[in-house]
Amino acid sequence: MKDELSILLVESDRDRAMQIVDLLSQDQSVKIAVISESAGLARHIAERNPDVVLINLASPSRDILEDLAATSGPLERPVAIFVDKSDDSLTRAAIEAGVSAYVVDGLQAHRVRPVLDAAITRFNMFNRMRRELETTKRALEERKLIDRAKGILMKARGLSEDEAYALLRKTAMDRGRKVSEVAEALVTTAGLLA
Amino acid sequence: MKDELSILLVESDRDRAMQIVDLLSQDQSVKIAVISESAGLARHIAERNPDVVLINLASPSRDILEDLAATSGPLERPVAIFVDKSDDSLTRAAIEAGVSAYVVDGLQAHRVRPVLDAAITRFNMFNRMRRELETTKRALEERKLIDRAKGILMKARGLSEDEAYALLRKTAMDRGRKVSEVAEALVTTAGLLA
Repeated sequence: MKDELSILLVESDRDRAMQIVDLLSQDQSVKIAVISESAGLARHIAERNPDVVLINLASPSRDILEDLAATSGPLERPVAIFVDKSDDSLTRAAIEAGVSAYVVDGLQAHRVRPVLDAAITRFNMFNRMRRELETTKRALEERKLIDRAKGILMKARGLSEDEAYALLRKTAMDRGRKVSEVAEALVTTAGLLA
Repeated sequence: MKDELSILLVESDRDRAMQIVDLLSQDQSVKIAVISESAGLARHIAERNPDVVLINLASPSRDILEDLAATSGPLERPVAIFVDKSDDSLTRAAIEAGVSAYVVDGLQAHRVRPVLDAAITRFNMFNRMRRELETTKRALEERKLIDRAKGILMKARGLSEDEAYALLRKTAMDRGRKVSEVAEALVTTAGLLA
């Protein structure tokens, strides 16, 4: 996150929007853009690329959750949604879509700041875990590929395991690729040559 | 989660506790126990093993977060905390401790139900990811151990990779252990025999 926090606020009530902008702008490192309706939200997010999205809605709808999901909004940045009322299934849908804060009871200006803090913290925490999961999955996949590639080389060329790995590594270095990429190419094409 | 949802409510205001119990009890599948203060919270959680913990506090404290962390409360079940006011650092600390819902602005009875829903959904989502991460990490670790064990056997006994794996697998089956357990034992003790 940059030093200056850019916020996109979706708020149809002009007075309340001003109130929130005033309140959040007390913190000089915050820059806020306001749009008055959630139509075109996906486009606004894509164009402005805000650090955080705050959305105030009278009542939530699946449409807006789908809009957000389409921009992969909630996975890329904290999104906080304030609604006047909700039902169980929409609450669940919003949270499962990755919304970092989902506040039922409408937006009151004095509650924006703590919700914003909470949304950012929760997003960072979730994102950290999501990245760790991706890294671990990739490491496991790469290891499986390298094992299969070694097996193919050992069988095809009568090499020991160490020799097979050394050959994969040398090929990778010669071509400026990762060992796992060479392994993947070998596994993919081995069937063609058999 | 069982069919009946058991909730532990920490609420010092007797009237409000009754109000919340009444409200939540409208749902017949909810069972609520109330304690009036957060002292001894860890023991209460350990003894009652509730599905969800709801805590209302005038102001949050690091003590209660540490108490919760000590019981690994927030990792084992959804915990929702309502506070009248908070600061950035406590909000962050609460969320990083794994609290599923952290509501600044005190507890109002009509907001309990949506917060409860949100806390359960968020907990389940986070828990799913946490388990997937654990499973993937374990699979990666097991694969590394098995690779190292195969390498040891190939070198020590002049086996091919397939033969080494077959030997590990046969040993595991004979002993009623997992292949990864046999591999770990071999890796651990190989240094002793060298």
